[in-house]
Amino acid sequence: MATVNAETITQIVLAASTGGPDKRVRKIMTSLVQHLHAFTRDVGLSEAEWAEGIKFLTRVGQFTDERRQEFILLSDVLGLSMLVTSQSNEKPAECTEATVLGPFYTSDAPKFANGDDISGAASGDPCFVSGTVKGPGGRPVPGARLEVWQADDDGFYDVQLGEAANARGIFTSDTDGRFSFRSILPQSYAIPHDGPVGDLLKILGRHPWRPAHLHFKIEAEGYERLITHVFRSDDPYLDSDAVFGVRASLIADWVRHPPGCAPEGTILSVPFYTLAFDFILNPVGGDR
Amino acid sequence: MATVNAETITQIVLAASTGGPDKRVRKIMTSLVQHLHAFTRDVGLSEAEWAEGIKFLTRVGQFTDERRQEFILLSDVLGLSMLVTSQSNEKPAECTEATVLGPFYTSDAPKFANGDDISGAASGDPCFVSGTVKGPGGRPVPGARLEVWQADDDGFYDVQLGEAANARGIFTSDTDGRFSFRSILPQSYAIPHDGPVGDLLKILGRHPWRPAHLHFKIEAEGYERLITHVFRSDDPYLDSDAVFGVRASLIADWVRHPPGCAPEGTILSVPFYTLAFDFILNPVGGDR
Repeated sequence: MATVNAETITQIVLAASTGGPDKRVRKIMTSLVQHLHAFTRDVGLSEAEWAEGIKFLTRVGQFTDERRQEFILLSDVLGLSMLVTSQSNEKPAECTEATVLGPFYTSDAPKFANGDDISGAASGDPCFVSGTVKGPGGRPVPGARLEVWQADDDGFYDVQLGEAANARGIFTSDTDGRFSFRSILPQSYAIPHDGPVGDLLKILGRHPWRPAHLHFKIEAEGYERLITHVFRSDDPYLDSDAVFGVRASLIADWVRHPPGCAPEGTILSVPFYTLAFDFILNPVGGDR
Repeated sequence: MATVNAETITQIVLAASTGGPDKRVRKIMTSLVQHLHAFTRDVGLSEAEWAEGIKFLTRVGQFTDERRQEFILLSDVLGLSMLVTSQSNEKPAECTEATVLGPFYTSDAPKFANGDDISGAASGDPCFVSGTVKGPGGRPVPGARLEVWQADDDGFYDVQLGEAANARGIFTSDTDGRFSFRSILPQSYAIPHDGPVGDLLKILGRHPWRPAHLHFKIEAEGYERLITHVFRSDDPYLDSDAVFGVRASLIADWVRHPPGCAPEGTILSVPFYTLAFDFILNPVGGDR
């Protein structure tokens, strides 16, 4: 019988776990056990600290339901999501960079025609977004599927409020690769912080705020899928995003306009905003 | 603005997390983020694999309730629990070694007098356990509080069945340090494996069995708390405990007896077992 102690346990666990059929799973689990044990040894984790960790993860589990994904939030605030996003989406400098998906994506958003208003019941200043989906060298990509989602004026996504889709929709780029829609001006907001992840941020001396942004998920045949945000250039949290998602190339100016004639021919009695942003996709099999 | 990418993200997260007041928490979280990120880089974790991980942890959370602690099970099967137990309980060779607490401990077990039968509604062959709680050099420890718990014949603990306490109780060692009780013969059993931890074991090519054992938690003034098991020497799973809890010094012989006069003067019409096991506690501030 092998002698189990603080030195031998890692090799004993690994030796016991070599029987699985999937080589990739074995590689992942071997590395995970090694790093998990190394962390535990490095800090000399005590039994009380281990129990706190179990309690914390149990609370994360209890906070997770159909409206709230506390495990993704945890991954986000530890920079894990952004690390995975970064290492999985290396591409030529010309292409639009990726950032985190976040916990508020839904796969069943309603479809709209270009120019439509997606804001629904979400409150906020009117905002008109337009741009072109391109490939390398600027060639337009027609027929690209664009999914867009954002928070309302109060910083909440429709899924957090248990509502039908608001400020969320799916578009298709036209023959010139162009897309356009009306929505609302995004505002900076705090990620949900009334749970264990919020407590963790407090303990780490961090705030829960994210700079204002629009989410995009763009798919087109022959191109790599792009999941990204566009951030407002005037936001005070650009340098301290709670989930580390900001990349300089994704920051853009929302232009404020006085009441009057808006894009799509709409006449507005209130000020409104416009954003123009083009996305450049990386061809499948393209340079990295 | 710092450039966020797969190389810089770790330092950016750590730099953002230095504001908390608790030095120990900062040390733990710094090491955790470093190891978590190093693991993610080492295996080149993909977005799909990350999503599988989130799904797995979400399921672990969903399986965890008052009767079942799937996070502790996960820690157990990854050898994390045994590592923490080992590094937290180093003591002189003479002392009884510690092993994992497991997920089935409850703090509200009923109190019994020495010699009492704790089996209640739990089925199994009668078993009489006795021994002495000692300090170094064999001096008896009177007034020690012993908590004992075990699974029934079918491998289930009372808490798993949602029952009142069965095969679980609290004793106090007498003036000679002695304790004794009647219970049932422990059997090897499978840890709960109808959930995500069971799926993980399958993927790793591992079985869910634990060798038969009794749990003890022993506390006495002036001594370090001891959490341990006593394992049956004839068990086929001693070398492949699903949670890596077996230590050679904790293996003992349960002696089988024909029907007749059992300890405490009981006359039994069925065969019964006896176990004699002494525990040697480490004084607080004793050698390591």
